[in-house]
Amino acid sequence: MKPLLAAINRQSTPHTPVWMMRQAGRYLPEYRELRAKTGGFMRMCQTPEIACEITLQPIRRFPLDAAIIFSDILTIPDAMGLELTFVEGEGPSFAKRIGNENDIAALPRIDPINQLGYVARALELTAKELPSQVTLIGFSGSPWTIATYMIEGGSPKGSFVLSRRMLYSQPELLRALLDKLTEAVTNYLIMQIDAGAEVVQIFDTWGGILPAQSYLDFSLAPMSTIIRRVQQHSPHTPITLFTKGGGQWLTAMAASGCDCIGVDWTTNLTQARNQVGHKCALQGNLDPAILRSPPEVIRAHTNAMLQSYGNHPGHIANLGHGITPDIPPEHAEAFIHAVHDFTSE
Amino acid sequence: MKPLLAAINRQSTPHTPVWMMRQAGRYLPEYRELRAKTGGFMRMCQTPEIACEITLQPIRRFPLDAAIIFSDILTIPDAMGLELTFVEGEGPSFAKRIGNENDIAALPRIDPINQLGYVARALELTAKELPSQVTLIGFSGSPWTIATYMIEGGSPKGSFVLSRRMLYSQPELLRALLDKLTEAVTNYLIMQIDAGAEVVQIFDTWGGILPAQSYLDFSLAPMSTIIRRVQQHSPHTPITLFTKGGGQWLTAMAASGCDCIGVDWTTNLTQARNQVGHKCALQGNLDPAILRSPPEVIRAHTNAMLQSYGNHPGHIANLGHGITPDIPPEHAEAFIHAVHDFTSE
Repeated sequence: MKPLLAAINRQSTPHTPVWMMRQAGRYLPEYRELRAKTGGFMRMCQTPEIACEITLQPIRRFPLDAAIIFSDILTIPDAMGLELTFVEGEGPSFAKRIGNENDIAALPRIDPINQLGYVARALELTAKELPSQVTLIGFSGSPWTIATYMIEGGSPKGSFVLSRRMLYSQPELLRALLDKLTEAVTNYLIMQIDAGAEVVQIFDTWGGILPAQSYLDFSLAPMSTIIRRVQQHSPHTPITLFTKGGGQWLTAMAASGCDCIGVDWTTNLTQARNQVGHKCALQGNLDPAILRSPPEVIRAHTNAMLQSYGNHPGHIANLGHGITPDIPPEHAEAFIHAVHDFTSE
Repeated sequence: MKPLLAAINRQSTPHTPVWMMRQAGRYLPEYRELRAKTGGFMRMCQTPEIACEITLQPIRRFPLDAAIIFSDILTIPDAMGLELTFVEGEGPSFAKRIGNENDIAALPRIDPINQLGYVARALELTAKELPSQVTLIGFSGSPWTIATYMIEGGSPKGSFVLSRRMLYSQPELLRALLDKLTEAVTNYLIMQIDAGAEVVQIFDTWGGILPAQSYLDFSLAPMSTIIRRVQQHSPHTPITLFTKGGGQWLTAMAASGCDCIGVDWTTNLTQARNQVGHKCALQGNLDPAILRSPPEVIRAHTNAMLQSYGNHPGHIANLGHGITPDIPPEHAEAFIHAVHDFTSE
């Protein structure tokens, strides 16, 4: 079994498998070169050959244990007609935003195969090219996280004023939006599995801004529904749940039925294991800011992170959040090599 | 005994005491009027009569149980010569920033009475004017939080690149800076107690961005030193520790010797009490975004928050972070009244 798949099933592995969130991205000069030639982030996502090529770029450079398909967490609202664009240096922006009941009622039910088939084709192309030990990961944003972008009309800068207003003042509207997104994410992940994704990850980037009870009701509950439905379709495809800022809720996350919990850099892995036990694998969690330090510092912190998980199966080494564009590729390499060096039999 | 002082000592009170972080601030029209006349945030902080007046503004409007002195968490680096200014709508900015060993070595030891005496005088003036049941609170930023602003040269926007770089690449430099700040904060809080502060609160606004071990070493350890030293000087003055994003570390925070832990809105108070027990009072934690909702929604969420703490002594109702400038004062009032209504004997 591939190391990452073994680890996610809490089985022993010859080394701790490792990948990095945003490993196919702007810190790589070959990515920047391709982006300059292609013109436009969404254009790259929507062209399967290019998305495949970008997915493979970090795999060619580093001995990674997983490739995550090059795409974005906002493909679903784009398919729903909100018209996603990326302005260089400013992040995502929608031409339309969701502000009231009519906006939500007007959102179409999407057909992933027809509307997001470019992700499926990119997965199929990538699956053919990947080295045999490398696991292919598909992903989606969580309903709550996607909803915040749709309500804010782009990056939820600062304090998420509009999304939190809907949460507290019109919770029934938010639920209607989340229901539509729950169905869309479910079908989107199933499509990705059918196209070759061996693991799927749900990115709940903004679950951590919620009060505990709101997190359970408005972020974790829809994700749990998705997990149940995807598992009915594909009982053997592991699902990873990553809530940034979710360190207080690991026990509840483990009860969702997910196979693996992504842990951000603020959580100590020893304590995370104490809460989750053998129920889920854990993925993470080096502070991505450590990659700005010299390689010997990266190695030392990576070792401490591995030690904090301890000598048990079920760990997938990763960063605690995405790698940032300013990191020298050699520093990413130092992290990846350190994981293999410190954990090889 | 005043209700807030009783609650912080885990004694029964006729109602749950309540105040709001940033209660003396821009959401009040009388504050905006005074600011327009005075010109400049630091000018207002540094003029004791004005700081006193602003401190009293919310007390005149609402039946609050505490007044927090109008000041800023960055008075210390200003006194150290970094020249703090506030640009409207952009937050704090320093003329100089701390980037290397020489910058830190050159930082002068401050003399709070001479350099920050304006805060002491504002406290003395306010103490004379306060209604007898209202507790006067003094405060400081935490060493780590102050350090982030000094290193970034102002608001640590986005990802705290410079502070986290120093943390990982030059931890000994950061320690030297934190040592200087630990001494300054200690003497600053003692001065405030001597001037009439009945409780002091340490605002650790940015402790929550740290990995667990770094939080313990670089944020909580300096705060624990401050608590020990302040308690040697003033054994009967309660100290509150507020780490935004600190919900994972409440047990460690309780072991610092503080009397009260400020809890942000992401943490469930039942779970917080289970971790902290009777060791500390808890302060918080309504999501300040709830104050954008209609008064009946505010009442319902306030009730749920009070219920989550339960019917035990030791709760000080508050928001989970500061009130924002866009909140109508009537909504703040709905929160304050709800606390008294739901908890009065």
